[in-house]
Amino acid sequence: MDYQKIIEKIALKLESIPHEGEVASYIPELAKINPNKFALNAHTVEGQDYNFGNVDERFSIQSISKVFMLTQAYMIHGSELWKRVGVEPSGNPFNSLVQLEYENGIPRNPFINAGALVIADILCDTLENPKEEMLNFVRRLSGDNTIDFNRKVAQSEIETGFRNSAQINLMKSFGNINNDIDCVLDFYYHLCSIEMSVKELSKAFMLYVNHGVLLPENTRLLTYSQSKRVNALMQTCGFYDEAGQFSFKVGLPGKSGVGGGIVAIHPEKYAVAVWSPRLNKKGNSFLGMKALEMLTTETNLSIF
Amino acid sequence: MDYQKIIEKIALKLESIPHEGEVASYIPELAKINPNKFALNAHTVEGQDYNFGNVDERFSIQSISKVFMLTQAYMIHGSELWKRVGVEPSGNPFNSLVQLEYENGIPRNPFINAGALVIADILCDTLENPKEEMLNFVRRLSGDNTIDFNRKVAQSEIETGFRNSAQINLMKSFGNINNDIDCVLDFYYHLCSIEMSVKELSKAFMLYVNHGVLLPENTRLLTYSQSKRVNALMQTCGFYDEAGQFSFKVGLPGKSGVGGGIVAIHPEKYAVAVWSPRLNKKGNSFLGMKALEMLTTETNLSIF
Amino acid sequence: MDYQKIIEKIALKLESIPHEGEVASYIPELAKINPNKFALNAHTVEGQDYNFGNVDERFSIQSISKVFMLTQAYMIHGSELWKRVGVEPSGNPFNSLVQLEYENGIPRNPFINAGALVIADILCDTLENPKEEMLNFVRRLSGDNTIDFNRKVAQSEIETGFRNSAQINLMKSFGNINNDIDCVLDFYYHLCSIEMSVKELSKAFMLYVNHGVLLPENTRLLTYSQSKRVNALMQTCGFYDEAGQFSFKVGLPGKSGVGGGIVAIHPEKYAVAVWSPRLNKKGNSFLGMKALEMLTTETNLSIF
Amino acid sequence: MDYQKIIEKIALKLESIPHEGEVASYIPELAKINPNKFALNAHTVEGQDYNFGNVDERFSIQSISKVFMLTQAYMIHGSELWKRVGVEPSGNPFNSLVQLEYENGIPRNPFINAGALVIADILCDTLENPKEEMLNFVRRLSGDNTIDFNRKVAQSEIETGFRNSAQINLMKSFGNINNDIDCVLDFYYHLCSIEMSVKELSKAFMLYVNHGVLLPENTRLLTYSQSKRVNALMQTCGFYDEAGQFSFKVGLPGKSGVGGGIVAIHPEKYAVAVWSPRLNKKGNSFLGMKALEMLTTETNLSIF
Repeated sequence: MDYQKIIEKIALKLESIPHEGEVASYIPELAKINPNKFALNAHTVEGQDYNFGNVDERFSIQSISKVFMLTQAYMIHGSELWKRVGVEPSGNPFNSLVQLEYENGIPRNPFINAGALVIADILCDTLENPKEEMLNFVRRLSGDNTIDFNRKVAQSEIETGFRNSAQINLMKSFGNINNDIDCVLDFYYHLCSIEMSVKELSKAFMLYVNHGVLLPENTRLLTYSQSKRVNALMQTCGFYDEAGQFSFKVGLPGKSGVGGGIVAIHPEKYAVAVWSPRLNKKGNSFLGMKALEMLTTETNLSIF
Repeated sequence: MDYQKIIEKIALKLESIPHEGEVASYIPELAKINPNKFALNAHTVEGQDYNFGNVDERFSIQSISKVFMLTQAYMIHGSELWKRVGVEPSGNPFNSLVQLEYENGIPRNPFINAGALVIADILCDTLENPKEEMLNFVRRLSGDNTIDFNRKVAQSEIETGFRNSAQINLMKSFGNINNDIDCVLDFYYHLCSIEMSVKELSKAFMLYVNHGVLLPENTRLLTYSQSKRVNALMQTCGFYDEAGQFSFKVGLPGKSGVGGGIVAIHPEKYAVAVWSPRLNKKGNSFLGMKALEMLTTETNLSIF
Repeated sequence: MDYQKIIEKIALKLESIPHEGEVASYIPELAKINPNKFALNAHTVEGQDYNFGNVDERFSIQSISKVFMLTQAYMIHGSELWKRVGVEPSGNPFNSLVQLEYENGIPRNPFINAGALVIADILCDTLENPKEEMLNFVRRLSGDNTIDFNRKVAQSEIETGFRNSAQINLMKSFGNINNDIDCVLDFYYHLCSIEMSVKELSKAFMLYVNHGVLLPENTRLLTYSQSKRVNALMQTCGFYDEAGQFSFKVGLPGKSGVGGGIVAIHPEKYAVAVWSPRLNKKGNSFLGMKALEMLTTETNLSIF
Repeated sequence: MDYQKIIEKIALKLESIPHEGEVASYIPELAKINPNKFALNAHTVEGQDYNFGNVDERFSIQSISKVFMLTQAYMIHGSELWKRVGVEPSGNPFNSLVQLEYENGIPRNPFINAGALVIADILCDTLENPKEEMLNFVRRLSGDNTIDFNRKVAQSEIETGFRNSAQINLMKSFGNINNDIDCVLDFYYHLCSIEMSVKELSKAFMLYVNHGVLLPENTRLLTYSQSKRVNALMQTCGFYDEAGQFSFKVGLPGKSGVGGGIVAIHPEKYAVAVWSPRLNKKGNSFLGMKALEMLTTETNLSIF
């Protein structure tokens, strides 16, 4: 298949549909982005790279960082993690607090905010310099040492993230947070503020394409079974309450962020990252979702 | 790989673990089953068959019939279906009524009871003799004309299914049920009462392995994209509020029933059906889940 | 105080405010009523009667009948009732099904529909001819033997009351309904269809003004303590999720119905009934609420 | 009636029933209290005082302070308050966060924690020295200038009140908190830590018996209508999710605190305060509830 042609065809089609959605505005620093940015990169196991648009421009990865946090915590703690966080889809945009309350402070999965905060707390327990070590881990996965936090974005979220504060306080009231709340939030928001390009994201996600092996180093970071589980979690929980839609339309495990990025993978085949800052009502990139739906429809390369 | 050996190894291992769980007792007719029945059949695209246990004995397929109902309705109505039923996981064992109420009578997906009742209502709108036509459809998929309803089981459920009556009445109050309630319930419970063996189930599910083509007839029933979507729905919604666990541990799209059956598929590779009547607390076959987890762990043949 | 003057003053004031709200339309028979009907009657322990408007015209008492049902059941079963129905406000317009599900089929109180259905089921257990005996009981309380059901209204509700069917089925699934569902619903809807005038309602509610004594017969029907409890329930639960507002603004125990009637009482002082068919968004009579708020504000005759 | 005799009779009866319940343990400072303390004081409009037990010993008034906060805020802001807090019972012990989320950060009423936090925020907006001015207000109502905060108790709650932090953060995310969160919490917890005796509490609550007039000063603090509304709120919302039970069994407006105190009033008649630190499962004084139930049953002096 001529992937480059397919990607260009998709990009052309996308131009003709109305560009709906708004840039995330609740984070002042993110609201400044040009809403018309667009980038797509696919990276195959054979090492080929297909590109379209601003593929080298970095943007705020936001919730995509939750996959990296989970990976690191899983490497260290193995299945002990699942005592403090579940593996089920949450089913509702607004129910993180509702469910947390009914389910005694155990978040549904590591990809909703509450779950990522528990993972952050676990990493704060273990790592000596959590921020530095996690940043280095992300640099290692993507093979680029210039990747960094955007401290302004992190600060901006620290000052306005009242809903996350509500969740972490609620979990602490149930005994599911060990560390100082401000310390965990500082770590969490810094991870969310990491900036990467679609190229770097695809490259980092090759870990999940390759069943847990970091090919450039020829090192296994996750067991085959662990990698399967991370991928399964991306499939069922990677898009908040739109996980069903994404599975249904795209049919690949993936993770989105409110910075407008989405990364998805096809095990043993390829990773694909897309960036477009306009978000649909569920908080996922409007054009990003469309692009990936077209990609798997054109190529019949979904996992289903 | 020597699948027959692997399956026998799994069966041996299962014997040594405590057989937890209880046979579904809320349906009097089902409560009479011998809890120690066990059967497993895998059927590959190459036409090979691997068997263990009571593979020819039929049992109540119950909720597995929802996949057949969805398929038939999807063939007739295409994406019109999604106006009346969603594609998202429901997230909660007890919240069908809660969600139905908050979400104005639109069920989350076609595999929770409320969603299957809407699909049943849609089929009652369309088919002249719904029960006969659907039974014939199931016979056609599995290639066996002796497959039949168990009318005693159907009657037993009609008399005791107050919770389903609550749901269908609630949906009717929101205008999402067109037909007479008793008529839809009669159709629905008859479909649930169909009895099949694991061999017949695997064979019928080859449709989803083969991306919508019914190979014995060389007929396409679902488009490639529709088949992808049915598989995605099985992945995210096939096991009630244990869909995440099943994805996580087994990593295959599948569907379970309270009769103790589970069917799962690996697109382009194989279908596998297992039967063991003891259910875990979530209503899924206890040993069935274990068997499939072992199978994908031993063979590394999950989709993730 | 010159009550007649106060009442006329209130009626005059009400004319000048916009007549908001709509007549209940979900019951076809009720939708035909003239929305501009208005009647107010106050009846004091001294035997005086103050009137304004269509005080002799009968209308559908609807949920006001729940007070009579509770009274009859309380007389027969005493505090045994509270094993099957609670005494707490429900707190949410939409949560009858939600709460019923979380609270295992025990309704919050006897004045939400689910609770009244349980009371109806209890009366069906006990009374030989439930409909006739309850009608006679209401006739006895109000001293008028021509009071009757409106069978057309009852029939109309039987055919369209899907939400009540949902609730009673859900309660039956939890074992909190003993009798045949259709039989209980028939009884319940007939009670709701009883037609009375404001005069008759005030007179019937003198029972609760007089701490449980039916003065015309000089018979005690409820103990002092039971009467206190019925009044307390009217205070905290008599207006669905607007009970707080009614307590807050009016400050009297009372009960409303979707036919546009409201009855309220001041123990040892008076009963007051008002009728105006336009309902606010919570399903309570728009002008009825206003009239009673003005009455207790003008006279300072609230219980608080 | 010989009230002194009735009170002694009640106290005697209480001795013979099992003393169930536990002292509040989630506030370390409060856990140290002797669980067998008991005091009851009734204060009539005629100025008579009836006493039993440790009537001069001060204890932590906790949530009873919410009535004082509401009174002060109502005096300053009138009905503007009701834009930011409702007047309906909440209906559920665990649903403060659930309801807050569904209802966009507007708490149900000023007597649940979330509602009192909004009132505290309003007072922080208005008062120059909130803590001092509110303390002086409570001293004024009870006529005793030695009443004070217990700063240890306040500090203890500041350090462990994660659930309140969750609620105030959630409300801030909805824009319903104006001031700095830590500042509002400090004010709120100090008010809760005020210590008073049952005698002082009865005296302070005479304001609500006397329809808003502070008799010792012959000053009107609340209008007649405002006083009615505060009393109505105590009736429907004063005992968390046991408000219905308290109305039902006691039949007086009142307010409880986890320090084991309860105050109730009968407008134009008397105020009564009781103290017993053992709490029932709903967080209200076990013996306090019993004592007040007996009191209104013996005297028939409920408002219903």
